[in-house]
Amino acid sequence: MGIIELLLSHPETTLTQLIAATETGAPISSLYPHLAGFCDLPVLAADDPGADEPADIVFMATPDGVGMKMAGVYLDAGAKVIDYSGDFRFGTVDAYADYATRIGRDPVHAAPHLLEQTVYGLPELHRDRLTPDRSLVGNPGCFAVSCILGLAPAFSEQLVETAPVICDCKTGVSGAGKKAAAIHHYPARYDNMNAYRLSGHQHVCEVERELSAVAGQPIQITFTAQVVPACRGILATLYAVTRAGVSTEQLLACYREYYRTSPFVRVLDRSCESGTAHVRGSNFCNLVVDRDDRTGMLRVVACIDNLMKGQAGSALQNMNLLCGWPETLGLLRPGAYP
Amino acid sequence: MGIIELLLSHPETTLTQLIAATETGAPISSLYPHLAGFCDLPVLAADDPGADEPADIVFMATPDGVGMKMAGVYLDAGAKVIDYSGDFRFGTVDAYADYATRIGRDPVHAAPHLLEQTVYGLPELHRDRLTPDRSLVGNPGCFAVSCILGLAPAFSEQLVETAPVICDCKTGVSGAGKKAAAIHHYPARYDNMNAYRLSGHQHVCEVERELSAVAGQPIQITFTAQVVPACRGILATLYAVTRAGVSTEQLLACYREYYRTSPFVRVLDRSCESGTAHVRGSNFCNLVVDRDDRTGMLRVVACIDNLMKGQAGSALQNMNLLCGWPETLGLLRPGAYP
Amino acid sequence: MGIIELLLSHPETTLTQLIAATETGAPISSLYPHLAGFCDLPVLAADDPGADEPADIVFMATPDGVGMKMAGVYLDAGAKVIDYSGDFRFGTVDAYADYATRIGRDPVHAAPHLLEQTVYGLPELHRDRLTPDRSLVGNPGCFAVSCILGLAPAFSEQLVETAPVICDCKTGVSGAGKKAAAIHHYPARYDNMNAYRLSGHQHVCEVERELSAVAGQPIQITFTAQVVPACRGILATLYAVTRAGVSTEQLLACYREYYRTSPFVRVLDRSCESGTAHVRGSNFCNLVVDRDDRTGMLRVVACIDNLMKGQAGSALQNMNLLCGWPETLGLLRPGAYP
Amino acid sequence: MGIIELLLSHPETTLTQLIAATETGAPISSLYPHLAGFCDLPVLAADDPGADEPADIVFMATPDGVGMKMAGVYLDAGAKVIDYSGDFRFGTVDAYADYATRIGRDPVHAAPHLLEQTVYGLPELHRDRLTPDRSLVGNPGCFAVSCILGLAPAFSEQLVETAPVICDCKTGVSGAGKKAAAIHHYPARYDNMNAYRLSGHQHVCEVERELSAVAGQPIQITFTAQVVPACRGILATLYAVTRAGVSTEQLLACYREYYRTSPFVRVLDRSCESGTAHVRGSNFCNLVVDRDDRTGMLRVVACIDNLMKGQAGSALQNMNLLCGWPETLGLLRPGAYP
Repeated sequence: MGIIELLLSHPETTLTQLIAATETGAPISSLYPHLAGFCDLPVLAADDPGADEPADIVFMATPDGVGMKMAGVYLDAGAKVIDYSGDFRFGTVDAYADYATRIGRDPVHAAPHLLEQTVYGLPELHRDRLTPDRSLVGNPGCFAVSCILGLAPAFSEQLVETAPVICDCKTGVSGAGKKAAAIHHYPARYDNMNAYRLSGHQHVCEVERELSAVAGQPIQITFTAQVVPACRGILATLYAVTRAGVSTEQLLACYREYYRTSPFVRVLDRSCESGTAHVRGSNFCNLVVDRDDRTGMLRVVACIDNLMKGQAGSALQNMNLLCGWPETLGLLRPGAYP
Repeated sequence: MGIIELLLSHPETTLTQLIAATETGAPISSLYPHLAGFCDLPVLAADDPGADEPADIVFMATPDGVGMKMAGVYLDAGAKVIDYSGDFRFGTVDAYADYATRIGRDPVHAAPHLLEQTVYGLPELHRDRLTPDRSLVGNPGCFAVSCILGLAPAFSEQLVETAPVICDCKTGVSGAGKKAAAIHHYPARYDNMNAYRLSGHQHVCEVERELSAVAGQPIQITFTAQVVPACRGILATLYAVTRAGVSTEQLLACYREYYRTSPFVRVLDRSCESGTAHVRGSNFCNLVVDRDDRTGMLRVVACIDNLMKGQAGSALQNMNLLCGWPETLGLLRPGAYP
Repeated sequence: MGIIELLLSHPETTLTQLIAATETGAPISSLYPHLAGFCDLPVLAADDPGADEPADIVFMATPDGVGMKMAGVYLDAGAKVIDYSGDFRFGTVDAYADYATRIGRDPVHAAPHLLEQTVYGLPELHRDRLTPDRSLVGNPGCFAVSCILGLAPAFSEQLVETAPVICDCKTGVSGAGKKAAAIHHYPARYDNMNAYRLSGHQHVCEVERELSAVAGQPIQITFTAQVVPACRGILATLYAVTRAGVSTEQLLACYREYYRTSPFVRVLDRSCESGTAHVRGSNFCNLVVDRDDRTGMLRVVACIDNLMKGQAGSALQNMNLLCGWPETLGLLRPGAYP
Repeated sequence: MGIIELLLSHPETTLTQLIAATETGAPISSLYPHLAGFCDLPVLAADDPGADEPADIVFMATPDGVGMKMAGVYLDAGAKVIDYSGDFRFGTVDAYADYATRIGRDPVHAAPHLLEQTVYGLPELHRDRLTPDRSLVGNPGCFAVSCILGLAPAFSEQLVETAPVICDCKTGVSGAGKKAAAIHHYPARYDNMNAYRLSGHQHVCEVERELSAVAGQPIQITFTAQVVPACRGILATLYAVTRAGVSTEQLLACYREYYRTSPFVRVLDRSCESGTAHVRGSNFCNLVVDRDDRTGMLRVVACIDNLMKGQAGSALQNMNLLCGWPETLGLLRPGAYP
């Protein structure tokens, strides 16, 4: 389930063009046979004739560095742009430079004037700015979605200490993209779990920025990325120290209030043992909110489908808001189980 | 790979009897066809003729409450007993009562006089007491092995604060035993991860007891059990706050020294991204030891095979020590990959 | 993806009642958390108050023997009934008796008068009888769908000999239903493939009956059921001896013509290596049609989602036809990938 | 489990050198962390200093075309050579040319004089020629092992017709080697089954050659290769038409007699539903032998571990025979379950 499938079934959109850097020249359905008869558009190269046809909305599922070079053209032509990379997740050149430096990229943003226009595309926190007068969205990182949704309410109400904060995140393999790699070759990956990139993950910046903004003071997180033998799904287990006197009931009440107007977040208590399979194929984020009675730790277990709420689903939700459509349009589906 | 396979290939042992509460009356190889020709012993009921033949060593892979009733008979007959349950993991009636209360069992131990004889079967911490003059071992819980091995060195050298301590543990499904359950039915389990028993897990007691003993002061842990769609393996990610001035190098040096004489523990730095598949079928515990440079958290990623170092492998290692054989006898195998 | 999800998103239907024999008394969403907010209807027992509310359409996902006892009541009340079991797959008492005998059930049908009303619910072969004046459908077996769709065209044009005919079928585990069983416990099932019920499978009767009808002479098949470590999907590899002079081109032309008006069948040549994942979550049947140049064997590789085209999708397709709605209403979706 | 692990635990062998074309220059245990401490030999390039040290036995796990160029050097130096490719599976230049042509390679063998020395390395059929005076073995293809072992007895006793013969084979993904490929990327492969290379598979030649030799007349097979979401294991379902009057009992008796002296073949009747997991990690081939009572088809379900009996296990078995050691030396292990 990606943005193509979502746009195909959305009542207000028509898919007009597919542009890619590789595997161009053939119908998308020859690469993804499940689309045969549903979307047989050719995959164009950026310089193919016709690839510059105007569109109302452009989704850029491109790596860091591409969006910042191309978004301006689309925006100037009147399109709304939703970019999946880190290029537009930060609102200032300094914030971008910090991010880029951490992940070893050129700290100079290629389109600094666009940074003041961009909105961080997490509607649950920024719905008020995801409005029809806006045209540029930095779609959030998949891990970041799970961590921010899981911790923002506690920080917003000062129910937890500012440190330490731990984000122990597990992802299915589709989070690594579609490119084959030795470590994700089926025989190497089945029946295997491992932590990776312990020295620093690219999603940490946006999590810290968002949580700091909510908390009103700087928050740093200890973040561990792990991959498990599943295709889809992120299970993020999040820990922070509750302030004295804070009860489980208070925490649950806080989370429920925080997400009262957010149709895709479900707040659950610790008796719930449902998992990533129960949000698979859907745009939901399920949050189990718990306080360890003995140690006083807040523990939140967040489940999302990394390809939906962690990527294409959020992108569509952002599109709906930017276009003035109902936030849930084309997104209210219960997920695929089993 | 369970205790049967390990005993079959061990140079000093002969498997003489199999006793079970259910599925008795047929050769073990009719239940486990991979054993055909290797072990075709009948599975006896406890009251079958011949089921009381004397043995030198008895492994009790039985639930809580069984070992405490039956171990005495075997011990009196001169056997050494290695019990897999919680019955003999605690050395005093009070410690047992605390454990039993937490997991909702009768706090009164049925064989209190045996508690002073029992040794907690984690050779890396208790090798000096796992000696030929001992006859009773409480084999540790699978999660507990990963948590204790991963945190004991840091506490032994006072390199971390005593709180908070977080044990975020993921297990393959074989940790739940062989009994079919709806949540582990293949269609419900594939592509699914979830946390469970958030209100309290039975392995917490022994982890806290061991870490407290090593630290010399009370340690409490926040423990999260999670299950992922793998068969074998535990990946435990462990967090504690390093004391001021403690460096990654110090941590690595401490861990390497602590396990210098432990043949089944490998200490690795954070550049290592190997996973549970690389210890599958082996008795090794791989520990990646890391300090988050930004937040100062100690982070240890521990990998074991839950059925080997987490159960049968440790049991065999304990047997070797109790019998005065080399600790690694019959256990030095590189694991099954892929 | 089951009938509940399909009915929820169907533009002409409203789900009014859920009745079950077990696990009654709670909302369906407590059993299937992915349905929370989409379908929170209580699961009623058949004798619960309100369980006899009239409905226009009744789906009976019940085992053999239940439909024959209860369908009459619903039919008399004016409902249309679509039954998933073998109860209404056969049009005569003799055909039913043959089936029942083979699978070890009572050969006497409890509602013989209904057999002359029932239609075998495979629209690709019986679309002309699945009309608004009909009210009772025997939804086909999942394996049967793949075998019949894969072989009917060849027999209809006499392009193959009548014997031998081989149906080598592999299914994902969800084909076994949702009930936990030792052989489908995750640790026993992952990385495992096996054949089962070699002495006879309950779907053979309907395949032979349908193929014989198409061929105009009796056809017997050698059928092998196998289960592989997947959740969803049937891959049926079907073999028959082509008649002298029959070419691959003729075979492909025959299949394409046969399914020209069937929107859910895709006919592909042997260059296609797509698999069950490419029909997952969809109602499509993909058929690769090939003639082995050296041996002259027809080889058809049929892929379906056993829970969709193999069950709920076909049921919805049948409902559409019985209600006079477009055959594809609520069913045209590209499937879930990856 | 590959040849390295097998040689490490073999009582008569010492591993002295590892030579590869790629990924050279580092210890093998840096590529395969499970070997750390067991085998830390460097991986040498063929022209590295020391790579020409003499060895008594050389295993060539190299692609087609390599063995034929290099085996001569090793043989001249007195080594025994066991080659995994198709280079030495055929005893004449014509047979090789036929094979090479079918798979699109140069039909001219680079070392034709070696073909008369080579033995096809399937001990169950060629034990009498796998003797200490021989030095060159063509290790069989993994699918071929399952098909030949599954059908040879029936043809040897003329219990089946010579046509049609169908080999419907399913393999785990490790059969495709360790190189990452898009189709075996975890997200593309989990929950997916597909047939491939329908136009012709490279193992067909050797199966037909062996079966023809056993039958005393030409046999052609219809062979279908399929991949399922497992790591290890081949399940081959084999079909042939039994001759008039042949009973299941006769078939079982024939198979049992044929393999009476073959320690790694187990003959089972159709009540057995065990699968590939029960031979995983072992050198066994389990054969379920069945006659479909209704259609008279012989049906044999063969299970092997493709990396053991399908490759390294057979190679070690061949080594044992060539060296005059017991056939089972270092190979009698029950497999890894679960």
